This record gives sequence, C-alpha cells and structure tokens, in this order.
Amino acid sequence: MRIALDAMGGDFAPGPIVAGAVEAVLDDRELVTVLVGDEARIKAELEKAPDAPLDRLPIFHAAEAIGMDEKPVEALRKKRDNSISKSWGLMAAGQVQAIVSAGNTGAMVASALFAGERAKMFLPGVRRPGIAAIFPSHQGPIVIIDVGANMAPKAEDLYQYGLMGSIYAEEILGVTAPRIGLLNVGSEEEKGTDLTRATRKLFEEGPWAGRFVGNVEGREIYEGHVRVVICDGFVGNVLLKAGEGAVEFLFSALREDMARLLPEFPVEVGMKLSQSLKALKTRFEYEEFGGAPLLGIKGACIICHGSSKARAIKNALRVANVMATDRINAKIIEGLAGGAAPAAAPSPDA
Amino acid sequence: MRIALDAMGGDFAPGPIVAGAVEAVLDDRELVTVLVGDEARIKAELEKAPDAPLDRLPIFHAAEAIGMDEKPVEALRKKRDNSISKSWGLMAAGQVQAIVSAGNTGAMVASALFAGERAKMFLPGVRRPGIAAIFPSHQGPIVIIDVGANMAPKAEDLYQYGLMGSIYAEEILGVTAPRIGLLNVGSEEEKGTDLTRATRKLFEEGPWAGRFVGNVEGREIYEGHVRVVICDGFVGNVLLKAGEGAVEFLFSALREDMARLLPEFPVEVGMKLSQSLKALKTRFEYEEFGGAPLLGIKGACIICHGSSKARAIKNALRVANVMATDRINAKIIEGLAGGAAPAAAPSPDA
Repeated sequence: MRIALDAMGGDFAPGPIVAGAVEAVLDDRELVTVLVGDEARIKAELEKAPDAPLDRLPIFHAAEAIGMDEKPVEALRKKRDNSISKSWGLMAAGQVQAIVSAGNTGAMVASALFAGERAKMFLPGVRRPGIAAIFPSHQGPIVIIDVGANMAPKAEDLYQYGLMGSIYAEEILGVTAPRIGLLNVGSEEEKGTDLTRATRKLFEEGPWAGRFVGNVEGREIYEGHVRVVICDGFVGNVLLKAGEGAVEFLFSALREDMARLLPEFPVEVGMKLSQSLKALKTRFEYEEFGGAPLLGIKGACIICHGSSKARAIKNALRVANVMATDRINAKIIEGLAGGAAPAAAPSPDA
Repeated sequence: MRIALDAMGGDFAPGPIVAGAVEAVLDDRELVTVLVGDEARIKAELEKAPDAPLDRLPIFHAAEAIGMDEKPVEALRKKRDNSISKSWGLMAAGQVQAIVSAGNTGAMVASALFAGERAKMFLPGVRRPGIAAIFPSHQGPIVIIDVGANMAPKAEDLYQYGLMGSIYAEEILGVTAPRIGLLNVGSEEEKGTDLTRATRKLFEEGPWAGRFVGNVEGREIYEGHVRVVICDGFVGNVLLKAGEGAVEFLFSALREDMARLLPEFPVEVGMKLSQSLKALKTRFEYEEFGGAPLLGIKGACIICHGSSKARAIKNALRVANVMATDRINAKIIEGLAGGAAPAAAPSPDA
C-alpha cells in the first residue's frame, strides 16, 4: 500500500506530520508513505528520527503549501505546485492508493475535482463526495455526513451520503446494519426544509428504506440509536465545530473547579480525579479514528483535523490503509447502482 | 402588567406551569398572570397552593391543548379552542401585554400570524419574528438567533435578526454594544452559502456595520468574543438541541465516573465534588434566563423549553414583564427604520 501524505498540511506541519508517518511505517512493514511537500524541510524532520525506514518514506517535492485560511479555489489556481494538488496528482496517476492531509479542507475537496477527470477520481455513480465525521454517543461512535464538502447539496446528494455513511459505519466501525437518520428540527414528516422533505421521500421510496428511521433532532445525536446522521455540509460543519467548542468549554470549566478543589483533597484523590478526567476527555477526542474520510472517491482520502499531532496522523494512515484495501468502495458502488436492498436495521427497541 | 400564560404547554403541564405562575405573582405584586387552558385542571392545581393570590391569577378557559409533537398548522386549524391560539387572541385584543408558553414552538410561532393582522402583531418594519436563545460562553451569556422560527430566511430576515439580537443583548443581558457575527463554516468572506454572502453584504453596507464582525465558526460560539450569532432557524435549532445533547452526554459520563470513584473517597470530598458538579451543570442550563424570546412582535413573547419546571416559568414571566415594559421594542423599531447607527462595538482586542 502506498499512501500520499500532505506533509505541509496542518497547524503544526511539517513536524508532527512527518513524525506520524515515521510511526506508521514502523508499525506496518507493508506501508509506503509518500511525503509530499518541501523536500528540505521534510528531510530535516526525517533526520530527527534516526530509526526511520527511509526506503518506505520517499519524498515527493512540492515547492508551495496552501495555508489553512487561504481561499481554496484561488489558492489552488495561484499555487500550482502545492502539496495538496501534488498529492491528488499522485492519486490520479495511480501512484498511490490513498491520500491523507491535515491541511485546508476546502482545498482538499476542490482539488479532488481539479486533479483529474471526474470519472477517474470519483467512484462510479457518485454525484459529490461527502466528508464523514465521527461523533461519540451512548451507543459508541456514530457517523455524521456531510461535515463540509458540500454546502448546498441536492436531495440526491444527501441520499448518497446516507448510503455511503451507513456502509462506512458497517465496514469500518463494525456496526451491524446501521440505522440512518436525517438531521432535522423535529420528528414529524413535514418538518424542516424542501431539502429535508425531498431527501426523506427518496429514502422512503428507495431500497434503503429498511435502514432509514426518518428525522432525528440535534439532541438525539448523542443518544446513538441512529448511527448515521445525514445533513448538508453547512449544518454538519457548524455542528462539528460547535461540538468541539462545547466540549472544550465544559472541560475548561471543569479544570477551573478542580484547580480550586484539589488543594483541599488528599493527594491520592487528586491523582485519581485527574486520571479520570483525562480518560473522559479522550472519549471526546477523535485521534483514534484518524480523521474524517472523504467518501465517494476512488481509493481512500482522509482529512485530518488541522491541529493533528503525530498520533492522529499515524491513525489516519492506518485508517486510509484499511479503507483503500477494504471492500467498502465495492459496496458503495453496488449500493449506488441500486442493487439489492441491504439488511434492514434492527428495530430501535431491539 | 398582564401576561397570558399557556397553562397547557409543556411536557409536565399544567402542574409546574401553574406553580410557576403562583411563584411569579407572589414575587411581583404588580403582576397579573392570565392562566389560559382547561379551567378544571388549572383550578385543581391552584388548590394545591393555598397562598396563591387568586385575584391576580385569572383563568381564561380553552377546551383544547396542542400536543408537543402535533403538526403546528394542522393542529391550529383543527383545534380552534386551543390554549396557544387563545393566548395570542388575548394579545391581539390588547388584554395582555405579553405571552409565555412552554408548549409546541411551531404552533406558538404560526399562531402569532393567525391571531390577528400582521400589522397588529409584528413591530413596524419586522419581516418575520425570530427566536433568540441564550448560550453560555467564556465571556458570559450570548444570543443565538434564530433557533427555530424561520427555516428558510432571506438575507433581509437574518439582517433583522442580527439587529434585534444585538438590541436584546444590550438591553436585557446588559452587554455594551454587542458584537454581531454570522454563523458560517469559515472566517473568509466568500465562505458558506448564497444566503450567508448576501447577509454579510447587507451588514457591511448598512448602518450596523460597526457592530458586525463577519463570519464566526461553530467553535467560536463558546469563546464569547461575539455576543450575537445569527443563523437560519434550521441551523440554530439543530445547534441548540445538539448543545443540550452534548452537555447531557458529558454530564452522564461524568456521573458514571463519579459513581465509580466516590466510594473510594472520604465523605467530605464526595460532598464537595457533588456540589461542584451541580453548580457547573447550572451554568449550562438556562432556567435563569426564563426561555427564549420571540423577537419582533409587539409586547413580548417568551417560548420556554418543553421540560420547564416552575422555576423556569417564573423566570420567563419575569423576563416577559421586563421585555414588555422595557424600551427594547422602541429601539428595534428605530433600528429597523434605518435610524442613526448604533454605538460601534469595541474592538475584539479591547
């Protein structure tokens, strides 16, 4: 397996990005990670890891890097020699089977379209790829799709997101016949917008009706009785970032309380509380899942959080590897072609 | 001040609703709360409060009640004699100056339009009222508008929401010249949808430009450097409910951890931790703010959470009282008429 890694993407690139690649190839002897970016800077980072197997960490030079806040399309046009476009170029040329980046999300998505012909980059039948993010819930991880690839989707796009998200949850997260819900402002049929009503109709009349449970409200996300939640990229992106903000805000308040209380407590109590809080915070972080896949493209593409450290990059490379070798894409193609109905989801009361 | 209270609205109505009304009128000797709903059931609840000043708790009978999950427009048409429509009827007839309900939000909003002529119910210049919800932040409470009155607003609606929200934050929450931000998926100008781009233009070219800071992302909500966040009612509603879900999920995980740890700790440590957690949770609840105002109507209208208990209802009546007597509506009318530019917001770095 060869994976292109955008070494220049992310708030702290290239340091932790290269470090994550080194960890990943040390862990998996079959893996080759192509480090795409500024050759001199990547070399300098590799020198910090004397045990790095350099034969499986080739560098593919890109003179430019797109900043996290740059306008995607403009940046892609101006900086022809950027690490994101060059990574997609490797995919289009068949030189890698997957791509990973913690860089500018908009540029990652737009570049998939620029890099080659649509038919070469997208899976057959896919209208527009969608980004699937993982949220925690009482029942385990759930998938929210789309969280930022498509700001103004049509009902047909959302339908495809539901189908791809459900296959992803089944194949990669190991959920049996995951239920699909449509994010909405109420449970009743006619709630929401023209888009939600049209999407609902597509599901109810299509072969995936057995997995579709109808509308779900924001509050239900964390309950986890629905393992795939579909929404447009605007709502999904706001939700993802607001969720991060809420968790940070709550933990900062908790830390303040603890800083005030701990001096009064016996030392061993303080240690246990700190450990417990740390473990709890981990449950709300997604480094283990290694970023969000862009579903609907050939091979695999994982988009990591801008603040990704080495561990997140290593995990993203692992997930990209699994996704590119797994039957997930074959299942998506089959599903989109309108093949046999999938196994129906078990009843919510089961 | 006379306020109509929908005694039948809410998950636990009429018990805690009537109890909240009793507390409110005991607290404020100038307040008359008209209890709208099933006379027999309201009377039965009033009998449980022997100290209730019945002269200031008149009952206005409504034979029917709209359920929390009923389709608003259909329910309003079928159940002519429902407590929500009757409450708005009292407003339209000038018999009360404000209205409070913990019932079906959609029915509350739709009924405002059915109860009388638009010009009689809305403040002059208002296109569509919007619901303003309060969120916590590092800098204190912030306003998010709209959280569910208008699923498909135009840019002009969002502009009015920004203006009304800013006046509300200034007059009711006591924030000096509150900054207004447009909820979006990135900070750059061209991010988002046609709606966000058009709204941004209206602000930048209008008299409120001095308060407008441009786009804000989901994560920034809790930072509080923007005290008014505007969005369409679909996104706002999802955000509000997802925020509740996230907080509940986090606290349930915290409680589990505590249940496991506390038996190992000295009793006084456990007590302090429990108190601290309880106080923290209160910061994330909004009962003190007494529900969300529907801004843009004459008088005042407060929409409470369906799960409201007596304390939330009492606070909502207090806030409705303040809003109906305050200069907030005069300021909204002035602002919408395009009067003098408001005091500019202080710089974010100030």
